Amino acid sequence: MDPITQLKKEMISACRVLSQQKLVEGFGHVSARIPDSELFLITPRVSLALVTRKELLTLNLKGEVVEGNQPAPFEAWLHTAIMKTKPRVNAITRIHARVANIFSVTDRKLEPVHNHGSFFSGGVPVFHPPDLISTPELGAAVAEILGEKPAVLLRGNGQVTVGGTIAEAVMMAIYLEEAAEILHGALQIGAPIPLTANESARRREEALPPVDLERAWKFFKNRAESS
Amino acid sequence: MDPITQLKKEMISACRVLSQQKLVEGFGHVSARIPDSELFLITPRVSLALVTRKELLTLNLKGEVVEGNQPAPFEAWLHTAIMKTKPRVNAITRIHARVANIFSVTDRKLEPVHNHGSFFSGGVPVFHPPDLISTPELGAAVAEILGEKPAVLLRGNGQVTVGGTIAEAVMMAIYLEEAAEILHGALQIGAPIPLTANESARRREEALPPVDLERAWKFFKNRAESS
Amino acid sequence: MDPITQLKKEMISACRVLSQQKLVEGFGHVSARIPDSELFLITPRVSLALVTRKELLTLNLKGEVVEGNQPAPFEAWLHTAIMKTKPRVNAITRIHARVANIFSVTDRKLEPVHNHGSFFSGGVPVFHPPDLISTPELGAAVAEILGEKPAVLLRGNGQVTVGGTIAEAVMMAIYLEEAAEILHGALQIGAPIPLTANESARRREEALPPVDLERAWKFFKNRAESS
Amino acid sequence: MDPITQLKKEMISACRVLSQQKLVEGFGHVSARIPDSELFLITPRVSLALVTRKELLTLNLKGEVVEGNQPAPFEAWLHTAIMKTKPRVNAITRIHARVANIFSVTDRKLEPVHNHGSFFSGGVPVFHPPDLISTPELGAAVAEILGEKPAVLLRGNGQVTVGGTIAEAVMMAIYLEEAAEILHGALQIGAPIPLTANESARRREEALPPVDLERAWKFFKNRAESS
Repeated sequence: MDPITQLKKEMISACRVLSQQKLVEGFGHVSARIPDSELFLITPRVSLALVTRKELLTLNLKGEVVEGNQPAPFEAWLHTAIMKTKPRVNAITRIHARVANIFSVTDRKLEPVHNHGSFFSGGVPVFHPPDLISTPELGAAVAEILGEKPAVLLRGNGQVTVGGTIAEAVMMAIYLEEAAEILHGALQIGAPIPLTANESARRREEALPPVDLERAWKFFKNRAESS
Repeated sequence: MDPITQLKKEMISACRVLSQQKLVEGFGHVSARIPDSELFLITPRVSLALVTRKELLTLNLKGEVVEGNQPAPFEAWLHTAIMKTKPRVNAITRIHARVANIFSVTDRKLEPVHNHGSFFSGGVPVFHPPDLISTPELGAAVAEILGEKPAVLLRGNGQVTVGGTIAEAVMMAIYLEEAAEILHGALQIGAPIPLTANESARRREEALPPVDLERAWKFFKNRAESS
Repeated sequence: MDPITQLKKEMISACRVLSQQKLVEGFGHVSARIPDSELFLITPRVSLALVTRKELLTLNLKGEVVEGNQPAPFEAWLHTAIMKTKPRVNAITRIHARVANIFSVTDRKLEPVHNHGSFFSGGVPVFHPPDLISTPELGAAVAEILGEKPAVLLRGNGQVTVGGTIAEAVMMAIYLEEAAEILHGALQIGAPIPLTANESARRREEALPPVDLERAWKFFKNRAESS
Repeated sequence: MDPITQLKKEMISACRVLSQQKLVEGFGHVSARIPDSELFLITPRVSLALVTRKELLTLNLKGEVVEGNQPAPFEAWLHTAIMKTKPRVNAITRIHARVANIFSVTDRKLEPVHNHGSFFSGGVPVFHPPDLISTPELGAAVAEILGEKPAVLLRGNGQVTVGGTIAEAVMMAIYLEEAAEILHGALQIGAPIPLTANESARRREEALPPVDLERAWKFFKNRAESS
């Protein structure tokens, strides 16, 4: 299988995993950089549960569709801004995780308290304007708030996660919601014990070696395919 | 397919979507105006998970069955009152969403904090008498409380949502429960940040253009059919 | 179909509905009086998800197995005590509903706040000793606490619901958990508004006419069969 | 079937039950002592939803793989430490139960309030360092904290449960999460009433006679197989 076909296949797997986990319901997008190019693939305005490999669009960093038969997503600017400014990011998910969304509409910071939350050490940044990211300026602003973190909350409007690979971006989405669920539950019964910066650093090293990332990714792909 | 058959097909889709989302369990009704007429279609006293196209009743605005072999629903007056007084409403759902119901039995107002909640700006009105809407007077009273809003909570007794199309009425039901879930979760962990009137207005415009409504409706119909 | 076979079939439906609703997981029992007799049918020590019609036991009011190849349940005394003292009760469920169980282990009374909760007006009684109901004395004590109510909570140990028919006993189990879920959710966000005694009485009349009970029962049986 | 094949089959059942209950998602391990030996079986670095009988590893008490084609799990030391010091333990689960995990990251003790929680009388001990158990020293430290209890929480990192049989270790995992869910729910609505030491002792005797353990195990195996 040629690399682009392989990448597209991986993107469709990502779409199905995010749907099966209910991290998207009807909306949301996934994008992935085409290696050694100024181009990236992105899902069109189609549910991630239903989108097919042939429908994937190829965009350049100006947000123009260079291949594909559908218009670019409203929020294409979010993806171009991140792809342009963050060379280590090769994949992006744009999701609507329920419990992470709850944190974004309160004054409560989403901080890690458990091992798979360690990627979010220091707390997940929040982009406060509740608008769709439909202009280059809004896209650049989100990319700046994201910084070098793996995720950003858009107030009342879902989340963005990024990774060096599609698998990593999707696992960040899954771990983000897991971190939110555990902190949400903890806040209801007592004083949560956050991971210290040191503990987070150590746990992060342990929790995402390539072998474990692959193991988790394989598990979630299998669950999505057999559901 | 003739327009009435098409409308009936859409109604059955609505019934299945509401069942699959557990917004109804055994009870509930869906109705839809027959265009350019004084008549509307309504589901009989049959679970929305099980009702068939042939069982749909045709009622006039006096609540009389003009076509169909079953008695009108107990709450037919709810539907006639809304159909009579709100010409822009062409479809109604009568549901029992769990978390929205929780708000109706407390002193807490259901106000939007997230983008898909923006339709409910200013808060969802509550009809306080806990009775079934089984008289013309009760029907008229609910229609008045509903006003120009897309939804009304019936205390301890479910909800009513309306729309210009069946798809819109169903999506209002789904977004109502989503708005309730997110506010419920937010209230447990901190101070919720409501959308301002301005933010709501802007988000409402963005969140329900016809293309997005169709995308969401297609997603939920597909989920219901494949479940 | 002869009446006993019909009754056994209905019992197996009840077992499957309670399993599908997760009101039992591995444990629990259902019993039903044989009309015009001093005998009743009861499930043996077998999961309600798995028990078959042929395995059902026939017991007399002394708790003796008069037909069937398995020993009586540990808690047979619970069923004999209720069957003996409450002639209007023809069916019993012994379940472990999660949220209702939560109320039983706190100082908080489970009182109805919504229409389908109206059957539990005045609050659901609690039997405080956490023991299995494995003696005639414990059985009699539970029957006394139950009184003329449709349900009783056994502290930390599940619940008992009763009805004039199998369908009614099962619907009481489903409505009990629904009432618990709604009150539990309400307590987390504000001051719950209980139904007054008058409101409950009126709602109870409206909410369980035979036509509606049949409609709900048909819905849940269909869901269990198709799951 | 020879005893080792039988044991391996039971282990795979345990893996599937834990997956189906979502007590593991991608990660986690199960181990079981080979009777009358210094050896035990353990799952390799493969999701418990996917692992096959042929992939099971045989380890000695020094953590060396004596049979099998994959490397030992990172946390093999956890299993060797417990197997070495606790002769009555013949099976171990290493899980990531969601609600039990929530307790581990707060100052709130997980104490039993309901009958199936009675096994955890006195509260579930917590191992505070958030590290993976990847050295003999950490393994020994967890084994010491576990003591004679059936479960230990690893702060923010899941749990360990043990039993005299595979079925018992798995049921302890299921009852641990059940105990956590009920206490979590109780803490949200009022003052939980813990089981006294006496009540726990009595309930423990009643709740896990071999016949009931078998009944529950059979139920969960059936659910996992038919899901």
